[in-house]
Amino acid sequence: MTRPLSVGVAGLGTVGAGVLRLLRENAPIIAARAGRPIAVTAVSARDRTRDRGVPLSGLRWYDDPVALAGDEGVDAIVEVIGGSEGPAKALIETAIEAGKPVITANKALLAVHGASLAARAEQHGVPLGFEAAVAGGIPAIKALREGLAANRVARVAGILNGTCNYILTTMTERGREFADVLAEAQKLGYAEADPSFDIDGIDAAHKLAILAALAFGRPVEFDAVHVEGIRAVSALDIAFARELGYRIKLLGIARASDDGIETRVHPAMVPLASPLARVDGVFNAVVAEGDFAGRVMLEGRGAGAGPTASAVVADLIDLVRGRHTPVWGASNGALSNAPSLPMEHHAGPYYLRLMVVDRPGVIADVTAVLRDHGVSLESLIQRGRAPGEAVPVVLVTHETKEAAMRGALARIADLDAVLERPALIRIEPA
Amino acid sequence: MTRPLSVGVAGLGTVGAGVLRLLRENAPIIAARAGRPIAVTAVSARDRTRDRGVPLSGLRWYDDPVALAGDEGVDAIVEVIGGSEGPAKALIETAIEAGKPVITANKALLAVHGASLAARAEQHGVPLGFEAAVAGGIPAIKALREGLAANRVARVAGILNGTCNYILTTMTERGREFADVLAEAQKLGYAEADPSFDIDGIDAAHKLAILAALAFGRPVEFDAVHVEGIRAVSALDIAFARELGYRIKLLGIARASDDGIETRVHPAMVPLASPLARVDGVFNAVVAEGDFAGRVMLEGRGAGAGPTASAVVADLIDLVRGRHTPVWGASNGALSNAPSLPMEHHAGPYYLRLMVVDRPGVIADVTAVLRDHGVSLESLIQRGRAPGEAVPVVLVTHETKEAAMRGALARIADLDAVLERPALIRIEPA
Repeated sequence: MTRPLSVGVAGLGTVGAGVLRLLRENAPIIAARAGRPIAVTAVSARDRTRDRGVPLSGLRWYDDPVALAGDEGVDAIVEVIGGSEGPAKALIETAIEAGKPVITANKALLAVHGASLAARAEQHGVPLGFEAAVAGGIPAIKALREGLAANRVARVAGILNGTCNYILTTMTERGREFADVLAEAQKLGYAEADPSFDIDGIDAAHKLAILAALAFGRPVEFDAVHVEGIRAVSALDIAFARELGYRIKLLGIARASDDGIETRVHPAMVPLASPLARVDGVFNAVVAEGDFAGRVMLEGRGAGAGPTASAVVADLIDLVRGRHTPVWGASNGALSNAPSLPMEHHAGPYYLRLMVVDRPGVIADVTAVLRDHGVSLESLIQRGRAPGEAVPVVLVTHETKEAAMRGALARIADLDAVLERPALIRIEPA
Repeated sequence: MTRPLSVGVAGLGTVGAGVLRLLRENAPIIAARAGRPIAVTAVSARDRTRDRGVPLSGLRWYDDPVALAGDEGVDAIVEVIGGSEGPAKALIETAIEAGKPVITANKALLAVHGASLAARAEQHGVPLGFEAAVAGGIPAIKALREGLAANRVARVAGILNGTCNYILTTMTERGREFADVLAEAQKLGYAEADPSFDIDGIDAAHKLAILAALAFGRPVEFDAVHVEGIRAVSALDIAFARELGYRIKLLGIARASDDGIETRVHPAMVPLASPLARVDGVFNAVVAEGDFAGRVMLEGRGAGAGPTASAVVADLIDLVRGRHTPVWGASNGALSNAPSLPMEHHAGPYYLRLMVVDRPGVIADVTAVLRDHGVSLESLIQRGRAPGEAVPVVLVTHETKEAAMRGALARIADLDAVLERPALIRIEPA
């Protein structure tokens, strides 16, 4: 066999250590599938003394990750530092300038700077792999960019954040409130000490921006993604969702129409019969709808050392085999320039839950506002009676424009009889 | 842009016409993703006059498919004739000898002659693509062979035949018997006039043989697959399955152990909580378990013109991009020679349903036979009482060797009180 591909790994956290372990444990399989052995020869991390559970002796060590790109013995760079700015970005830019292929797991960097990085990689003829950036061990990027390459994709949707899915699943199974389950998830290590990146939907939005770019063949546009997290999801709404035949999931959804592309991350009511409704716990899933392939769903582990390392090494094997694909599926000159649509253009059915004073005339006031904004009701549920006290009222609309819904909602929230901030959850077909 | 890749399509049935339609309708997308247009310039089919819903004017026509391979204007061959012998085989062999890349949807050919075809393709350095041969529009081959390439795969399992899944789903939803549902499926066009290829499990076995070869990196071995179809599945067993928390699915399963590789297609009891239990109707699904990636599931349309054409054209795009992968994921010299295990070596839990005369002592006789063969019972259900008449008895075993189960079954079937051929269905973890 030929000389091994010599890899420099930047970042020795969970994922970096996982890549080292995978390349060692499955070395014979990897060499057979790549047609050449793959070996790590250099690493970069901050703390030289920490025990990471993998032997580091014999590897060249760099305190500065950017210096890895200058190591003449390194054929390719694996970047698993993370973060959209700072050393990860500097390393990747330097490696591309130096003509060194880069494999990264960095969704934030790809989402925020992916358009310029892709242009730069193409200009220098350098492969830039990022299978690990979305949905961990699920080969979602490969499936979308190569497997469904012949299709016009109408829609891609996914459960893209395991922390949120774990929290929503536990709330659903146990009837518990968000804050309570979040605290438990933090204790169990399923949520970070500062969980905002996950629970406010930012992480899912990074991944959705990448998936949308692949599905529709246009440069990534993170700023266009409408983002809502799961902090406002209540046990009450989860119970109503169940009664109405739905599950509440944090979805990332990208949809193409003649006018442009809509990208959004928010809690959604998903019909129980839809495959995404049954993806529970820390699992991730991606659904893509192609005009010829039909609906394809992929499900698996979206995070963790093993799944992420599996994706990083798959990219390394592609690299060795010479299987090259432009970052967004087509060369920069052949990408689409379909515009992004603002959220106000979205149309779909809505679930609206109010806490109102139980007294005559309240429903009439609420429905009059909806009528005035052209919002058509599909159903209304008012459970229990407690004259003069607060009771929940649930309204489900037919397809409605987001702009109309927002207008109606502002007026409804201002009604005297409406006691709390109304809960608004979009209903999704899948 | 450069000159289009010139493709010759052999076979103008549903799939062939679908390929022509897809290449025409999505030509701009395909050219962008391939980096070069792809155009059909020559075709071969038997009947020149039939209307296939796609224009054929301007295409060179060959009555003999093998002659396509000799057309100097053709850069690559798409074989969608089907069949493990005859013109499909002759065409592919001729094309490979002529150095022309081949894309095929032919699972029978790949399963039966795939080992020698792969060796021949490697010898001539000719790409041989067959994404369309397994699970239609689901990029299962790409996911397994490239996406999970870094993993040691322990098990791959799938719902690989849409006709069988449609029949079993309808039997389950409506409580109807096999023969009745099959007749209806034939009327609706979901089952062939001669359905044996599907319902006897042969089609699923072809696909499983291919998946096993990819998952474990060894040449395909169709003869080693244990095959049982769905003719013997009864409404009664489907009802008991539901009661026990299972669905009955026709599964293809390949499992690797230290001793070798087990491959089998048979009706299986799948726990309701498993994702495969919810794959209904004509949908297909593939589950793979990698040591690093964990469990990955892919679901989608396994047949039909659109999904199959999507897979064929994905292979053509890979071809144009130069994304090349050896047929079984590694070059012939680097493949595994793990032996195939005979079905007698299988071990797992079993569901056994008997029709017995309702009289004292029968259960004692049956359980004595099981004890004599070392089969341990997990549960036993005897519903209803009808002294002297036939009643069903259901037994669920703990993990048991297939050989022991077969021995016990032969003796149980011989008992006087056992009235019909016992129903034996293996229970699968997923």
